[in-house]
Amino acid sequence: MPTDATSDFDSRLKSVADAIETTLDRLLSPAALPGEVVRPDRLLDAMRYSTLGGGKRLRPFLVVETARLFGVDGEGPLRAGAALEMIHCYSLVHDDLPAMDDDDLRRGRPTAHKAYDEATAILSGDALLTYAFDVMAGEATHADPAVRAALVLGLARASGLGGMVGGQALDLEAERATAPHEAAFVMRMQSMKTGALLLYGVEAGAILGQASAAERDALKRYGVALGAAFQVADDILDTESDAATLGKAAGKDADRNKATLVAALGLDAAKRRRDALAEEAVAALDMFPRDRAANLAEAARFTAQRRS
Amino acid sequence: MPTDATSDFDSRLKSVADAIETTLDRLLSPAALPGEVVRPDRLLDAMRYSTLGGGKRLRPFLVVETARLFGVDGEGPLRAGAALEMIHCYSLVHDDLPAMDDDDLRRGRPTAHKAYDEATAILSGDALLTYAFDVMAGEATHADPAVRAALVLGLARASGLGGMVGGQALDLEAERATAPHEAAFVMRMQSMKTGALLLYGVEAGAILGQASAAERDALKRYGVALGAAFQVADDILDTESDAATLGKAAGKDADRNKATLVAALGLDAAKRRRDALAEEAVAALDMFPRDRAANLAEAARFTAQRRS
Repeated sequence: MPTDATSDFDSRLKSVADAIETTLDRLLSPAALPGEVVRPDRLLDAMRYSTLGGGKRLRPFLVVETARLFGVDGEGPLRAGAALEMIHCYSLVHDDLPAMDDDDLRRGRPTAHKAYDEATAILSGDALLTYAFDVMAGEATHADPAVRAALVLGLARASGLGGMVGGQALDLEAERATAPHEAAFVMRMQSMKTGALLLYGVEAGAILGQASAAERDALKRYGVALGAAFQVADDILDTESDAATLGKAAGKDADRNKATLVAALGLDAAKRRRDALAEEAVAALDMFPRDRAANLAEAARFTAQRRS
Repeated sequence: MPTDATSDFDSRLKSVADAIETTLDRLLSPAALPGEVVRPDRLLDAMRYSTLGGGKRLRPFLVVETARLFGVDGEGPLRAGAALEMIHCYSLVHDDLPAMDDDDLRRGRPTAHKAYDEATAILSGDALLTYAFDVMAGEATHADPAVRAALVLGLARASGLGGMVGGQALDLEAERATAPHEAAFVMRMQSMKTGALLLYGVEAGAILGQASAAERDALKRYGVALGAAFQVADDILDTESDAATLGKAAGKDADRNKATLVAALGLDAAKRRRDALAEEAVAALDMFPRDRAANLAEAARFTAQRRS
């Protein structure tokens, strides 16, 4: 039986995911293109294919719920959350390419390069990445241009060379290594590859909420711990799941000498680490009123305990 | 014999290209990464490989010279120009990929996926694209966050779905068509694929210079005509050059049913169109003092007459 807190959380997660879906659908409608240009229909279609119709939208949820801590809601956090989700989705499209992870399935559907073609997959990823900055810099995201510039800068940092893309490059290099990877390296690489975007979700909410320095520090500790819990949970899921329940080829990480924490620490120690990280995230929220921060606390526990 | 105007222009073009090279080198130095992360050396190396050491830097030149019309120079226009050049360079890296144009040579050197590998080429393009927005949104680009947000928004528009990436997608689709392409379609597709970034160079200078609406309109006419002249000149060069002088496989466009204006209009009509567009660009500068706008006027003629 779910407790009241988890059932409240589940319905809130679903409601934010629905609002993000609507926002993404609107932002990726043909009307979003200026009228005088030729419409690249197939490209737009591929962008929609890889973005709409699924996912828990955990990153946008962090944006929306963190902004709400400061009384900010409506269009701004939804746009910022949708932009962040575009970055997440483009990264999956590019990671799935034959030259990268070479995956045919994603969430139980053909990956973009299978559903379309490789060139379209590459370009649709580029276009989603670019469009994320368009949305973030747009006036409808926040009236204050200083807030918009800060959102853009943070998103670029989290998703670039020193963040997600850099982490992905390190992960590919690590795959070629013959020796097992040390836990400290794995955690830092994963903090770039996966953690940075999750942390940015929290940071974007704090930027939109114009949080104080102390509030931003606390939220950063929350975001770092949640991001780490997410990745350890991911490694554990990969070890325990099979292709049927996960919708992608599981066990692949181990086959490929992927740098995972399960490989570095063993399964039991990895589970203890995951749960400790979730509680560390919850503890970082202490300075906020418990009822207002309840959804963020549940998000950390959900991230650690999720089954897919 | 070069006239004085062209020799002044040549030395100015060279001097801006040198300053842009220095700026790119600094922005892409290891010091640009935050200290606590693991450095993805190979990725950074690939980003530098595809960005440094060459090119006329025409797009940054347009940023710098347009900003200078309004008395704005120094760090800001150089950073904005370098960011724009990163977008241009990433687009070449992705366009050269096996799934796209499948080119082995670029400026006489192996393309990124040949010098490194396909995964690194894809990721280095993603990282350059992302880093461009980092640089554009940074405080050192302009003190006023409204200017930075406008620069980001314009760059995203010019390089995304309704601009460069969309144009590239349309070009790939056009290649698959069996019938010849109409001139009007070719011009609009190319205005997205190539024209949008050149126009944005001018627009970025105008944003940095906080130009009036009338000034921005005039500069937009200049940038649109220059962008069109550039692409027609490119089509003509491709028809007339061979691999030895151009450093890439020439004549390829015709082999592949590429949508070019030479194919649509014939060579002589294309040359007349190119020269008329260059003069249209020069005429659009009429509202500015002739001496201050001389470099922009020469840039339009240079764009039409260049030999590589």
